[in-house]
Amino acid sequence: MTPEERLAQRGITLPEPPGAVAAYVPWIRTGHLLITAGQLPMRDGRVAYCGKLGVDLSEEEGYQAARLAAINALAQLKAAAGELSQIRQIVRVEGYVQSGPGFPRQPQVVNGASELLNELFGDRGRHTRLALGVNELPLGAAIELAVWAEISE
Amino acid sequence: MTPEERLAQRGITLPEPPGAVAAYVPWIRTGHLLITAGQLPMRDGRVAYCGKLGVDLSEEEGYQAARLAAINALAQLKAAAGELSQIRQIVRVEGYVQSGPGFPRQPQVVNGASELLNELFGDRGRHTRLALGVNELPLGAAIELAVWAEISE
Amino acid sequence: MTPEERLAQRGITLPEPPGAVAAYVPWIRTGHLLITAGQLPMRDGRVAYCGKLGVDLSEEEGYQAARLAAINALAQLKAAAGELSQIRQIVRVEGYVQSGPGFPRQPQVVNGASELLNELFGDRGRHTRLALGVNELPLGAAIELAVWAEISE
Repeated sequence: MTPEERLAQRGITLPEPPGAVAAYVPWIRTGHLLITAGQLPMRDGRVAYCGKLGVDLSEEEGYQAARLAAINALAQLKAAAGELSQIRQIVRVEGYVQSGPGFPRQPQVVNGASELLNELFGDRGRHTRLALGVNELPLGAAIELAVWAEISE
Repeated sequence: MTPEERLAQRGITLPEPPGAVAAYVPWIRTGHLLITAGQLPMRDGRVAYCGKLGVDLSEEEGYQAARLAAINALAQLKAAAGELSQIRQIVRVEGYVQSGPGFPRQPQVVNGASELLNELFGDRGRHTRLALGVNELPLGAAIELAVWAEISE
Repeated sequence: MTPEERLAQRGITLPEPPGAVAAYVPWIRTGHLLITAGQLPMRDGRVAYCGKLGVDLSEEEGYQAARLAAINALAQLKAAAGELSQIRQIVRVEGYVQSGPGFPRQPQVVNGASELLNELFGDRGRHTRLALGVNELPLGAAIELAVWAEISE
């Protein structure tokens, strides 16, 4: 099964890849690497998860926010690669989680992205990762997520 | 026009590239990639913009801080590449903005770097980007900025 | 002397490389680059340095935390490369320091990692760097550290 078929199986439709919020591009290729810009948990043109984990949002909401940001990253990777099966390996996920005082469960939040990538790509989805807390994010988003991937050919 | 000529046209003189604050080097090359260390908005040997966006500094001051940090990054890239025209592509800008409570306009701040790179390099200046809020930065700086570039041959 | 011999000389034993806390892998290779996941200052299976610099921990404790996180990163690099002498160059260190209000000495903290890498690898240990403050980290750790290295062949 292709990653696109696995997405369909889960009822996930990739959105039109969100455009850049500012003076940059949403993905770039350098050598065999594709790098997305930081993706927010956007749905239908607005941020679907705002606020701080541990204050405004539960861990489960954070997980869903990370999953949604990953879906937006996948839309960018597909725009870059044509087909997701051209992705040879997911290399790195950077997850920056807007965290309230004392919230230490960034890994569990970023798992919302990591587990989706594992499901879709199998061994090719196994990546290294940053999971960090930050105090503020653009548009008040709960998470910003960037994905690095290696492309075939 | 070369990037250096466009800098001159804007009245911008690249500084002596600021040395490292600590036990590291200000840029490195690996394969076709040049990567700068995190650059602060230094001018004449001191941080010109300190404090938190939304508390101590306006968005316009943040924009100028990002632009100044980018000028320091350009000085590093020029030291690395000899001539900025050897830069084939700006690949990625990482902008970490010292942000006060509720400040969500990191993208507008980091535009101070992105727009300068776009002006100087045209299509070669189009990059992916992180724009993140953080609570503290070295020397109290308003922004830390790292730039990744692809170099010709 | 090999990096392993220099470690022995300093009485440092590399731990069993800590496994991933979640749905990711502790290191990956892409092209000539090795990238570790974010490493915490783990010792004997628990985080040895928790809390905020400038509030809960002194700068010297932060330095030791960074050094310990670097030792864990070295364990990952050795697992990836077989021998540390296969590392052609340490490329980049990313140091995210859990920082209390007004703490601006992230560079001095991250030096705990940088200086160890310099000692072990000599010129091959000279790297670019991020040193950033963040408000929260996984498991309450004082620092999260990722290392990029270039591998021979």
